[in-house]
Amino acid sequence: MQLHSLFAETALLPEGWAEDVLFEVDGAGYLSAVVPNARADGVERAAGPVVPGMPNLHSHAFQRALAGLAERARDPEDSFWTWRALMYRFVAHLTPEQIEAVATLLYVELVKAGYTAVGEFHYLHHAPDGRPYDVRAETGLRILAAARSAGIGVTLLPVLYGYGGFGGQPAGEGQKRFLNDPDGLLRIVAALREAAGADPQVRVGLAPHSLRAVTPETLQATLAGLAALDPEAPIHIHVAEQTKEVEDCLAWCGQRPVAWLLEHAGVDARWCLVHATHMEPAETAGLARSGAVAGLCPTTEANLGDGLFDGPRYWTAGGLWGIGSDSHVSHSPIEELRLLEYGQRLHARRRNVLRGAGPAIGAALYGGALAGGARALGRPVGRLAPGCRADLLVLDPQTPALVGLSGDTLLDALVFAGNRNPVRDVAVGGRWVVREGHHRAEAAALRGFAAARRALLA
Amino acid sequence: MQLHSLFAETALLPEGWAEDVLFEVDGAGYLSAVVPNARADGVERAAGPVVPGMPNLHSHAFQRALAGLAERARDPEDSFWTWRALMYRFVAHLTPEQIEAVATLLYVELVKAGYTAVGEFHYLHHAPDGRPYDVRAETGLRILAAARSAGIGVTLLPVLYGYGGFGGQPAGEGQKRFLNDPDGLLRIVAALREAAGADPQVRVGLAPHSLRAVTPETLQATLAGLAALDPEAPIHIHVAEQTKEVEDCLAWCGQRPVAWLLEHAGVDARWCLVHATHMEPAETAGLARSGAVAGLCPTTEANLGDGLFDGPRYWTAGGLWGIGSDSHVSHSPIEELRLLEYGQRLHARRRNVLRGAGPAIGAALYGGALAGGARALGRPVGRLAPGCRADLLVLDPQTPALVGLSGDTLLDALVFAGNRNPVRDVAVGGRWVVREGHHRAEAAALRGFAAARRALLA
Repeated sequence: MQLHSLFAETALLPEGWAEDVLFEVDGAGYLSAVVPNARADGVERAAGPVVPGMPNLHSHAFQRALAGLAERARDPEDSFWTWRALMYRFVAHLTPEQIEAVATLLYVELVKAGYTAVGEFHYLHHAPDGRPYDVRAETGLRILAAARSAGIGVTLLPVLYGYGGFGGQPAGEGQKRFLNDPDGLLRIVAALREAAGADPQVRVGLAPHSLRAVTPETLQATLAGLAALDPEAPIHIHVAEQTKEVEDCLAWCGQRPVAWLLEHAGVDARWCLVHATHMEPAETAGLARSGAVAGLCPTTEANLGDGLFDGPRYWTAGGLWGIGSDSHVSHSPIEELRLLEYGQRLHARRRNVLRGAGPAIGAALYGGALAGGARALGRPVGRLAPGCRADLLVLDPQTPALVGLSGDTLLDALVFAGNRNPVRDVAVGGRWVVREGHHRAEAAALRGFAAARRALLA
Repeated sequence: MQLHSLFAETALLPEGWAEDVLFEVDGAGYLSAVVPNARADGVERAAGPVVPGMPNLHSHAFQRALAGLAERARDPEDSFWTWRALMYRFVAHLTPEQIEAVATLLYVELVKAGYTAVGEFHYLHHAPDGRPYDVRAETGLRILAAARSAGIGVTLLPVLYGYGGFGGQPAGEGQKRFLNDPDGLLRIVAALREAAGADPQVRVGLAPHSLRAVTPETLQATLAGLAALDPEAPIHIHVAEQTKEVEDCLAWCGQRPVAWLLEHAGVDARWCLVHATHMEPAETAGLARSGAVAGLCPTTEANLGDGLFDGPRYWTAGGLWGIGSDSHVSHSPIEELRLLEYGQRLHARRRNVLRGAGPAIGAALYGGALAGGARALGRPVGRLAPGCRADLLVLDPQTPALVGLSGDTLLDALVFAGNRNPVRDVAVGGRWVVREGHHRAEAAALRGFAAARRALLA
């Protein structure tokens, strides 16, 4: 299972495609050398082109059990908010064992599809009656166990969730499993840091859920507490996903939510603003300047009818961005990148909208999501370079969409052609986790997931 | 390979989900009996839920070789029209052998993904210099051979393509392989009808390419000639895919293209209007009333930046519609249906937009595409009922997205959750073509495709 060295006829390095690349991996799972134009002597050869594994910057793992079950029109104005009410009912009775089972299957699916790291924005902290578990970080530890079972790198982002609306409004019944205060959350953060230890596969940050769920005071206290533990730790927050949130924020403080955050919260390179769908041009430019990452979740944003991110303006301003699978209606980075661009094309009525400086849109999308995703997760991933984690995918050259292609054209076809999963082998942190499309933990994970789902539907 | 009878614990029949269904198939591949609440005695049992195979109403098979190769920003205003110029250059040198090789792989992919019938809108009739092949229907016969190799049902729609723009403008250099007149086209139709013979897997209709490519006189002559051969034969046409086409049509005749067709072309249940993206409300209502099918191609329409079909108005008016994979950037009916709805959600900022009368959107989408697709292809498909073709899919109950689900909820999850192909076994016309995810002709088809693509890229 351990990968010491690998030879690839072609591989995507930070500076572009290279030929005859020799990768060497140290005992802790870091790349120790990456040498183009090398010789293969006696080294395992990758069965196809090698690309970096994709970071998935936004996951609510437990929602995987709900994927596909909320596509019912119960209301003529079916929306994000009716979906949320359904989700609340669904999670009311989830046990820690079920959370782990669902997360394990999800993470197996993510790795098989080419995600090698995930940011788990985890807010289901407490027992069904709202009281803390005896082990305060119980559910977060279940997430960590699931990530280790599936072999995916993880950034744990336990959530500050104190209120039901802007300005400290009381939370609703459906939110009682989520509720905590800065002190309670920081105890969970400390427990997760202890459980992570020196494991290079794990990072711990935190996530104020949204401006709806905090006050300026609880936000400030939480950020100060985190900085005392780890001044570089990642900070994620949901923001401006729905127009109602923007309206409520304006009513509360006279500013739009992204504008408020940029002015009051010290948004910088530690931050990931998830969704940021509804921004005015000055907010878009300000977010791009801040060094924070826009956490885009195209399939969930489409599924929930959120609306369209102002991609052209943000791209022009050079903003960082990455992708997340969020509610897990999809677990494919390809579907996220494809839908990100297709939403823009349908709106703008032209082609190749979200390109970078050059003509290669597949490379621009794949590379952009690698860079922003790595930043948001606060781990040395997304680059096949010395000192980074050995997180890599071997693509199947027999995938019809890729046959006969190479270089950036191969990335175009990877993102924009076909439906078959092109990922053949996956190494995470220098260990083979998927070989020839098979994940070692898959069968057991599916049994656990099936049992959890049957119990939830009973 | 021949299927005589099959028992399914659960199956989607025209009246809805039924249990313990016994299917019997006659020697010609038609369902002879469909009996719910039956006993399984001695009959092969389906390994999972059975649903009808999906008709694919719009294909340009040769474009499969180009999928993924046109995602380059060559022009700051990259559009449908720059894509078309690229496609013309690409097809300039395709040989009949390459057309057959590309189509064979495509059709294998379509069947594996759950399409059991395809409408091939075929306009690459002539040799690179524009002259007819010695066998006039050479390329159409290659398409027929590919469909037979892959085991997919096919509706052959050879194309009338006479001009380069409205009102009989001369065609361009890139279009010379497409050009013919009504008499030339009807000779091809007759040759294909002869090659099809009594094969129940084949139907022959025709397709005026678009109002850009015909005049009222050539359209009229062609339709009269077809009616003399087969008064019920399917008639397909591209219409209103791009706003430029609408503008040019207004300049030519003062009417928009769908309005012109509805008033002048005798549009009725034989017709499929492909795309129909840009319609005013009266056109949308008129198309719904006409009995024609709207041929929606969501992934291609997104890829080409065409714009969004007015789904809510057309659905409310009860219009028929189906799906096509068109340029073959996707070959999954799931991706087409998902993107059809997601495009609407992103635009309307709400959920579950394209539902039918009931709450079940997955069932409404899958069922709608079956009904409209069957109508457009002019073949007895899309329904598991006596007298229809035995075209059926066995879904894999171990697909994570479907685990533990049944009935319409299973269809919701089929359309809206996951990325793994859930199709386990496929029967077309009473013959097993895919078993346990494997297609008998797959390996050879991939070799043929790879050789063709390498030659084209050389």
